[in-house]
Amino acid sequence: MNEIKIFSPATVANVACGFDVLGFCLDSVGDDMVIRKTDKKGIHITKINNFDLPYEAELNVAGVSALAMYDAIDVNFGFEIEIYKNIKPGSGIGSSAASAVGSVFGMNELLGKPFNKIQLTEFAIKGEALASKCEHADNLAPALFGGFTLVKSISPLQILEIPSPDDLYATIIHPQIEIKTSESRAILPKEVPLSDAIAQSANLGSLVHALHTSDYKLISNSLHDVIVEPYRSQLIPHFNEVKLAVLKAGALGTGISGSGPSIFSLSKGEETANKVKDAIEKVYSKTGIDFDIHVSKINVKGVKIIE
Amino acid sequence: MNEIKIFSPATVANVACGFDVLGFCLDSVGDDMVIRKTDKKGIHITKINNFDLPYEAELNVAGVSALAMYDAIDVNFGFEIEIYKNIKPGSGIGSSAASAVGSVFGMNELLGKPFNKIQLTEFAIKGEALASKCEHADNLAPALFGGFTLVKSISPLQILEIPSPDDLYATIIHPQIEIKTSESRAILPKEVPLSDAIAQSANLGSLVHALHTSDYKLISNSLHDVIVEPYRSQLIPHFNEVKLAVLKAGALGTGISGSGPSIFSLSKGEETANKVKDAIEKVYSKTGIDFDIHVSKINVKGVKIIE
Repeated sequence: MNEIKIFSPATVANVACGFDVLGFCLDSVGDDMVIRKTDKKGIHITKINNFDLPYEAELNVAGVSALAMYDAIDVNFGFEIEIYKNIKPGSGIGSSAASAVGSVFGMNELLGKPFNKIQLTEFAIKGEALASKCEHADNLAPALFGGFTLVKSISPLQILEIPSPDDLYATIIHPQIEIKTSESRAILPKEVPLSDAIAQSANLGSLVHALHTSDYKLISNSLHDVIVEPYRSQLIPHFNEVKLAVLKAGALGTGISGSGPSIFSLSKGEETANKVKDAIEKVYSKTGIDFDIHVSKINVKGVKIIE
Repeated sequence: MNEIKIFSPATVANVACGFDVLGFCLDSVGDDMVIRKTDKKGIHITKINNFDLPYEAELNVAGVSALAMYDAIDVNFGFEIEIYKNIKPGSGIGSSAASAVGSVFGMNELLGKPFNKIQLTEFAIKGEALASKCEHADNLAPALFGGFTLVKSISPLQILEIPSPDDLYATIIHPQIEIKTSESRAILPKEVPLSDAIAQSANLGSLVHALHTSDYKLISNSLHDVIVEPYRSQLIPHFNEVKLAVLKAGALGTGISGSGPSIFSLSKGEETANKVKDAIEKVYSKTGIDFDIHVSKINVKGVKIIE
């Protein structure tokens, strides 16, 4: 096999109570990438369809993660990468993670899978760090492993795969505004009240238990972010209005996707997820802000070969 | 049935990463209590074998929880309570919780079980509050439900039963020193670094996952308390020495039981738990401080009828 086409999915990080550690994988949005062996050594990005991203491998997220893997192998050939990007950079649903994961997943397949998923995550972290200026894996892990993942620690890298109930759907709105990552980080407090830390922690423990037991009511009860949302939600226009509308429409819970501006909601069943979509559209269509919106089953497979 | 004898177990609250929310139930230590219907209306404590505790129901933890239940029923008889206390008050292994739970569990049995465990916890919280000056359930919940419990919230009361792996044992040392609850509370910071809150939360989420999957290695990796232990361990003589010794002896992890001074360790298998006991004895026998020590399987049943 000399060429492979893969689908690298969008992901939601933080998931309300799981700030910086929890994430889940989407099905309906993602990048397509073609990875091809080539006689010319090195990593060569030969096509990017969209978004004016750099072709120089060492300046491109997919290129940097690919180079990290390429440095770890000894082969007399190289790789070409074509990127068909559907996830807008800066949307808060893991655009850079999808790029970072796609190249290393594809290369690993063409090489006969010498690396496991933890090793692939290690390579992808290098690419992700180019985009976000720090090493984190809360989008990478769900993109690679699928489903819900908890990044217990970065060093050493420990990723836990948390079960995902069958009937869980996400609704995601991406308001077309720009939030600078630097701003969304700067707005966070350095210290938090002990009582908030306890509440957040209880919610995360509870959400993990709820996912294990497919307890949708408890999922709903656990999806609260008392630490980050009060700050970051100020950067997202009409966040509270959306929140009220989705809960009224039957969503289990809602929160900021990654560092925003996207907002995720989780629902039991596709029908409710679509009602939630309608409710969000109703709120946002009045604002004059452009937006993308979509419904997705939780993608338990993660990145995958499509051709 | 007019009389019942019950065993009300000791419990470990906090469990390293689960400050204020997590607890588990012990098998080897607990109070015995006799609850008896009597013609004389009201709650009457007729015997306490130990520790110079008050006989007036409204001043006694078991009495206050019993009164809370008694106020909720309408009967033309009363209850006598005999307390055979084996858990020393102030030991940090849920002495007051055992008393608070025992009386309401026993009364409920004699009444034909009109109340469920959540309702029993609500009554017991009133008794616990007499001892600890605040309403909390992190010892009550494991005493009533058995195994590991996560108190997700107090109002409304939400208690999650987390599975307990079959081969999990606790070793508990109770150094015979007094730590004032007020002091162990006052020493805690009001605010904690966000990074610590995230780490603690990741450990709790991870411990819940590890208990669900019987992953002993992950249990071990999760038993870290970065928030409370650095402060409270200063109040417990030789805490760090004990910690090093138990980990060397093969314990999965260790931490302060409740607000101390007891220290718990968890181990895979009884043999290791006994080695851990030997290691602690070796450290503590040199200190000149009296201590109790015991090994216990995790008690998945909780409070129970013995006669």
